[in-house]
Amino acid sequence: MATIPSSQYGFFYNSKVGLKLKEDLPVAKLLPGQVLLKVEAAGLCHSDLHIIYEGLDCGDNYVMGHEIAGTIADALPGVDGQFSNLKVGDRVACFGANGCGNCEFCRTGKDNDCVNAYANWFGLGSDGGYQQYLLVRNPRNLVPIPENVEFAEAAAITDAVLTPYHAIRLANVTPVTKLLIIGAGGLGTNAIQLACAFGADVTVLDKKQKALDIAKKLDPQITAYTELPNDLPVAIFDVILDLVGIQATFDLAQKYVKSKGIIVPVGLGSPNLNFDLASLALREINIYGSFWGTSQDLAECFALAAQGKVKPQVHTVSLKELPTYIEKLRNGQYEGRVVLIP
Amino acid sequence: MATIPSSQYGFFYNSKVGLKLKEDLPVAKLLPGQVLLKVEAAGLCHSDLHIIYEGLDCGDNYVMGHEIAGTIADALPGVDGQFSNLKVGDRVACFGANGCGNCEFCRTGKDNDCVNAYANWFGLGSDGGYQQYLLVRNPRNLVPIPENVEFAEAAAITDAVLTPYHAIRLANVTPVTKLLIIGAGGLGTNAIQLACAFGADVTVLDKKQKALDIAKKLDPQITAYTELPNDLPVAIFDVILDLVGIQATFDLAQKYVKSKGIIVPVGLGSPNLNFDLASLALREINIYGSFWGTSQDLAECFALAAQGKVKPQVHTVSLKELPTYIEKLRNGQYEGRVVLIP
Amino acid sequence: MATIPSSQYGFFYNSKVGLKLKEDLPVAKLLPGQVLLKVEAAGLCHSDLHIIYEGLDCGDNYVMGHEIAGTIADALPGVDGQFSNLKVGDRVACFGANGCGNCEFCRTGKDNDCVNAYANWFGLGSDGGYQQYLLVRNPRNLVPIPENVEFAEAAAITDAVLTPYHAIRLANVTPVTKLLIIGAGGLGTNAIQLACAFGADVTVLDKKQKALDIAKKLDPQITAYTELPNDLPVAIFDVILDLVGIQATFDLAQKYVKSKGIIVPVGLGSPNLNFDLASLALREINIYGSFWGTSQDLAECFALAAQGKVKPQVHTVSLKELPTYIEKLRNGQYEGRVVLIP
Amino acid sequence: MATIPSSQYGFFYNSKVGLKLKEDLPVAKLLPGQVLLKVEAAGLCHSDLHIIYEGLDCGDNYVMGHEIAGTIADALPGVDGQFSNLKVGDRVACFGANGCGNCEFCRTGKDNDCVNAYANWFGLGSDGGYQQYLLVRNPRNLVPIPENVEFAEAAAITDAVLTPYHAIRLANVTPVTKLLIIGAGGLGTNAIQLACAFGADVTVLDKKQKALDIAKKLDPQITAYTELPNDLPVAIFDVILDLVGIQATFDLAQKYVKSKGIIVPVGLGSPNLNFDLASLALREINIYGSFWGTSQDLAECFALAAQGKVKPQVHTVSLKELPTYIEKLRNGQYEGRVVLIP
Repeated sequence: MATIPSSQYGFFYNSKVGLKLKEDLPVAKLLPGQVLLKVEAAGLCHSDLHIIYEGLDCGDNYVMGHEIAGTIADALPGVDGQFSNLKVGDRVACFGANGCGNCEFCRTGKDNDCVNAYANWFGLGSDGGYQQYLLVRNPRNLVPIPENVEFAEAAAITDAVLTPYHAIRLANVTPVTKLLIIGAGGLGTNAIQLACAFGADVTVLDKKQKALDIAKKLDPQITAYTELPNDLPVAIFDVILDLVGIQATFDLAQKYVKSKGIIVPVGLGSPNLNFDLASLALREINIYGSFWGTSQDLAECFALAAQGKVKPQVHTVSLKELPTYIEKLRNGQYEGRVVLIP
Repeated sequence: MATIPSSQYGFFYNSKVGLKLKEDLPVAKLLPGQVLLKVEAAGLCHSDLHIIYEGLDCGDNYVMGHEIAGTIADALPGVDGQFSNLKVGDRVACFGANGCGNCEFCRTGKDNDCVNAYANWFGLGSDGGYQQYLLVRNPRNLVPIPENVEFAEAAAITDAVLTPYHAIRLANVTPVTKLLIIGAGGLGTNAIQLACAFGADVTVLDKKQKALDIAKKLDPQITAYTELPNDLPVAIFDVILDLVGIQATFDLAQKYVKSKGIIVPVGLGSPNLNFDLASLALREINIYGSFWGTSQDLAECFALAAQGKVKPQVHTVSLKELPTYIEKLRNGQYEGRVVLIP
Repeated sequence: MATIPSSQYGFFYNSKVGLKLKEDLPVAKLLPGQVLLKVEAAGLCHSDLHIIYEGLDCGDNYVMGHEIAGTIADALPGVDGQFSNLKVGDRVACFGANGCGNCEFCRTGKDNDCVNAYANWFGLGSDGGYQQYLLVRNPRNLVPIPENVEFAEAAAITDAVLTPYHAIRLANVTPVTKLLIIGAGGLGTNAIQLACAFGADVTVLDKKQKALDIAKKLDPQITAYTELPNDLPVAIFDVILDLVGIQATFDLAQKYVKSKGIIVPVGLGSPNLNFDLASLALREINIYGSFWGTSQDLAECFALAAQGKVKPQVHTVSLKELPTYIEKLRNGQYEGRVVLIP
Repeated sequence: MATIPSSQYGFFYNSKVGLKLKEDLPVAKLLPGQVLLKVEAAGLCHSDLHIIYEGLDCGDNYVMGHEIAGTIADALPGVDGQFSNLKVGDRVACFGANGCGNCEFCRTGKDNDCVNAYANWFGLGSDGGYQQYLLVRNPRNLVPIPENVEFAEAAAITDAVLTPYHAIRLANVTPVTKLLIIGAGGLGTNAIQLACAFGADVTVLDKKQKALDIAKKLDPQITAYTELPNDLPVAIFDVILDLVGIQATFDLAQKYVKSKGIIVPVGLGSPNLNFDLASLALREINIYGSFWGTSQDLAECFALAAQGKVKPQVHTVSLKELPTYIEKLRNGQYEGRVVLIP
């Protein structure tokens, strides 16, 4: 393992000046029980734009980048060796929601909702992956990457795969589930692959024919529409993943979901959504909130990726090019997942 | 068993003339497999007012009354004796949602959502209990009443107990559930008894101190508020039953529900409700539609009533007095459950 | 529709004389609400041998054949038309467990365990499919066959697909389930197809290399063993379907099941099985009884078959050849599923 | 807080010499992230006898005592303060199964089955509570004790309440559950209180009338038998907790459990148990392994104890008297839970 430098470069966010390259960020000195991660790949996500340009407030003064894969560069023993199998050199990804491991939510398999980690997520309120070395204070939030999964893919899996996977698990999708996915963009293409791995009967809705063409290549058995046909019967889908999350898509979800069905509004396109109370009650429709994914979900996503059941499309560029790609993403000039290599 | 007359009186609903007493309603002649029920008690419900005065449309031209208990007066054998244990003289209640028994929903224990029964519910679109004899075309929708449960109680159980019971079951309430019940009216008092039977830690919110006083008598261990105190921490309830269902109560529910918690908007006070999408998603809040209850739920409500774990408060009057009591209910002059005796 | 004859041939079972061809069986006259099924295909099953040669007691004096597909030849209206969508000419399969539709089990989606149907199953205690016309007293036990599924396949689906499907559903198999299937015979080949449709990571164990070769053709991604290798780690499978059900296979299941895992002993190879209590308790192993499948499971199996996700291998012969094929099955001369055509 | 001594007394187990008092046990020096617990109470359990006299092998050379409550005497910061709310002076109990917090089981709310903690349980393979100061290497395994729960009760709750609570949760007991509890001893009396808190319809079977008399005092509504009456119908209980776990009791469980019901063999009275395979399969009986309880279960048991819903009966004596009470327990001279105070 190469010598660990004492300073490094990275992209630091401050709410007044925005996201700026800093060449002299310190590399953390470890306290017992902590881990230093050499960042090998960090994914760029639309949420980053919401923070930089739209005032989404996750905290202030931190290195951004919440989709992180890397190598363990250093680790100081702390809690007993019984409690962790990690060692220097291991390939790991960060569980973004950075659960405390101790609260009721972490104890019951819901560490994505950890009350102590709120606004302490990697790269969203506390330091993340747009730097060379990341301090990981609680090693429980490192998940091993399988050998045959690349760092850049692993980074994308921590969010763009994990998020639809979690929603699919919450909705208990099986081969007899008729599933509608609204939105075939970055998350959508992974949602489609995952839904097909679960054997579901998948219909995809996206305004862009190009997105549907890509989706069809992922699995030719899916049904794809730019608009739901007038003669499509209503109330036919067991589960609807709304990856857009505006009133128009949510209204479609309410119309086409079966009685006792499940709507998961994964996309956060609108601050509020309206539901028809009588229809929700009489038809026993369920609306499930779904946030990112749990650390166990992440381990399961890696298992599926290792088996080839899901493979996120990624485009790797140097971390130094981050500002350029933020602009491209902002201007809609780029579609796929960009992963930055420090 | 007394002779069955060929005609009878009852209250017939027509959307143009409203609910009217008819003295010459025919008593149905049975086809094979059908049952004639001598109505012994029929509960009066706020939904009746919605139909008569507010244009709630469940169909037209039928005898109203959807909370029905009675005695089997006649039954013509049809499907094999293997398939039913009912016999003349049995005390039974009608499962209001009148499930077909054959569709996917009925086959999987969700007969309250039977697609074939929609708007074919007893007393809500098809003939119900505000008459002396009711034709029951599908005897699967008759549920035996335990010996120690009176007809008037049984009638109330088919709706005012069944509805909160179903919501409590959907929300999987246990002794470690912190439960908020918003609304301590007719359904509320039964919801409180049931929640206590499930061992839950119950908080009740109702604007009326009088309603809370009654609630406190049902179980002195509950916490009761006319208004939630300012220093009550937010996000503390695992489950919230909103028996009112207006935006103001639903907003309270959103504020006070725990992450991963469940809101069941049982009351239909407003046609639409608005939810905060980011809060729903990030805190993984779940909104469950809940409609009436299943036939098995009804059997279970009777089992609990037989054990004394729930006892609806009822006030019995003659069926002929129905118009008077509809007026009283409309004018808020009456609080408890009125049950009409033909 | 051809004229319905008044008599027919069929194979009648009596515990003293065994299974005998009768040329003069009456064709039932319908009572209201009943259906007459023209049998188009009836599958031969090992259970038939258990009855004829090993004294398995399901009742006496009935036409055998419990895997039944046919066409509705006649139906007398009985219960209201609301309650059934079936009509003369419809292609349907019999739900073998013949649930009453009224008991607690039927009301809650567990009609395979109907208490009233015990020993009243089609072809196992009451009349079944080894005849030309079958009286169906409760039409709820007829499930529509999709257009692109043949009668012979449909017959096999009612048992040889339904049984493993039900076990797979009970065990909640998903793409992250590591599943071991012990026994790659008739049920096993269907179990493998289904498990792959659910996306599971499938390992198959069967002593016969030939059976494994067939299994590998169904899905080349499965891992197949004639014997579990010595270096295979113990406690690695989330779910184990033991389609053999003798102590030796069950001991393997106990050894290789993960903590919190599930063993489903589907095969009934031994009257009793022994489990290690300390291991079951400390490792929280679960043993699930699984019997045939529910009527909704059967509808779901047909949906999967219509989508090509499962296709049972069948060999059709004339019903008159039944005695010959019973001998072949008994002598191990035949491996696939034989389906008899009246 | 009093000064922490450098040595202490305690009862040390060695497989050759048995359990012996040592007066010069060292008090551990903390490493970062660790906690030193001043033991305030440690419960005596039958499992201790199995180790000392019957060769139950959980490891060698350790201080016994697996039901532990105490006060945090010292804590060295290690992992970030974000990750724990504990501080010196807090009243806490040990989660006996001592989960690692990192493995798949700990991540998914099943930390009682932690693979890394196997034979590393407090007082069962590694040091426990029969001493004055206990080193807790992973503070996640400390659960706060509510103010109104005494140390001695808290110690008993960590096992004698937690174990039946976990079984009751696994079996999903509700007010419509007909529950049979076999064995009304130490665990049984707590199981009864808990089952009543869950609202269940409880029947208790114990050979000793005296045990039943105590049980009846806990809740007069239970049904209690020294022997199940001959005219009791079979197959009537939804859930059976077998706290004895010998073939005779397990056979009763198989006979009296309802179809689709659940048997939880909590008691480990026999190394092996035999089940009737055909009955298990056809009636879809489920056998659930249940081990101790999870850390979240423990927190929930404390919540119930704080609300007065369960109160274990304890008898406190000085830790120095341990040998005397082991003898009494061994000779059946003592019935209740003995808790030792260092």
